[in-house]
Amino acid sequence: MPNLVLIRHGQSAWNLENRFTGWWDVNLTAQGEQEAKAAGELLAARGLDFDLCFTSFQTRAIKTLNLALEAMGRLWLPVEKDWRLNERHYGGLTGLDKAETAAKHGEDQVKIWRRSFDIPPPDSDVGGPYDLSADRRYAGIAIPSTESLKDTIARVLPYWEARIAPELKAGKRVVISAHGNSLRALVKHLNHISDDEIASLEIPTGKPIAFELDGDLAMKDWYYVHERQG
Amino acid sequence: MPNLVLIRHGQSAWNLENRFTGWWDVNLTAQGEQEAKAAGELLAARGLDFDLCFTSFQTRAIKTLNLALEAMGRLWLPVEKDWRLNERHYGGLTGLDKAETAAKHGEDQVKIWRRSFDIPPPDSDVGGPYDLSADRRYAGIAIPSTESLKDTIARVLPYWEARIAPELKAGKRVVISAHGNSLRALVKHLNHISDDEIASLEIPTGKPIAFELDGDLAMKDWYYVHERQG
Repeated sequence: MPNLVLIRHGQSAWNLENRFTGWWDVNLTAQGEQEAKAAGELLAARGLDFDLCFTSFQTRAIKTLNLALEAMGRLWLPVEKDWRLNERHYGGLTGLDKAETAAKHGEDQVKIWRRSFDIPPPDSDVGGPYDLSADRRYAGIAIPSTESLKDTIARVLPYWEARIAPELKAGKRVVISAHGNSLRALVKHLNHISDDEIASLEIPTGKPIAFELDGDLAMKDWYYVHERQG
Repeated sequence: MPNLVLIRHGQSAWNLENRFTGWWDVNLTAQGEQEAKAAGELLAARGLDFDLCFTSFQTRAIKTLNLALEAMGRLWLPVEKDWRLNERHYGGLTGLDKAETAAKHGEDQVKIWRRSFDIPPPDSDVGGPYDLSADRRYAGIAIPSTESLKDTIARVLPYWEARIAPELKAGKRVVISAHGNSLRALVKHLNHISDDEIASLEIPTGKPIAFELDGDLAMKDWYYVHERQG
């Protein structure tokens, strides 16, 4: 049986508007809520269960977890929230939609920021509308001004090693509700995906990915959890 | 400023049907969800904020907390869940409505169970429809077969002393989302209410109660949080 399940949060308001979100705290759409609930129903129907949950500091991931747990009758499970599972910080791109970004920076440059492993977008505007320095949730945390995927991985993996891996090694079954890029960090690590390939791996929203890890957390099997075929 | 807020969960399906609920895991009604959201909006409007949250193992209290936190923009706060904040276990009365209870046991007897301090209802039926012994959430916990209010207090207060009081003494601001009787235990303790009087103290659903406690957790002030008067 799988002992680790990853869920990317359901559709958010800015997914729908095609805007760079990053650390900005955007809520789920009604469809996103429905995806989260369906993920929980699917996990329960397939007999997957957990001892411990992890999520980010961001509403869309926390709500996805809560809605999935409620659908499973598991709202009582312990949940640990940490900023290190947050989405990649998109710096100065935060809040821009596809057309605005292309107009401002050119489509080729945007593709580079989206798809390169280690090139971060420009820094966020200090004092701009998406400045998080006054957000109490990040008090005491060095908020990045921007992140490449490599930077995101560099803060996700130490958290994995410190908090999640020990629980799995102790035999706990874990579910993680997080974001496209913080989950890419974990999938890259577990599946030994190269730096060149990881940026183009698309993780669908609200679709649980199950991993069976051995006692040393080497990957034995993984699959997208889906309805059993007739 | 208050450093402790207690919230009794919003209306549940069985509050509405007037059935003894206790440890049975009944969900909120739409009205209950609305009460929870309104509680969060009220706390935010009155400038109340928190560092740490506690709730029971029961869906109605956890959801009340989650909905209030979401309304406050505080879904990212740490939450600790514990069975010792659960509702009083109503034993063999669980699932019975007012009329059924009166028909089975007589109204006078029911009043004694509801309003006495130390007389528990009959034990729950082993193997009956409300037997929780197979519920994974209570694995390793000696589920009571029934509880008087005194019994409930006897498991709430050690948890308060072990987990909540130290956080308050360390300067943390705490919100607790729980149940009529687990909150009675705390209000009795904080306000030095006598055994005779506590059972008749009614704690309204979804209406936050704020406490200002000093460094030794002696009560300086308490009040129901309400809309500021025009």
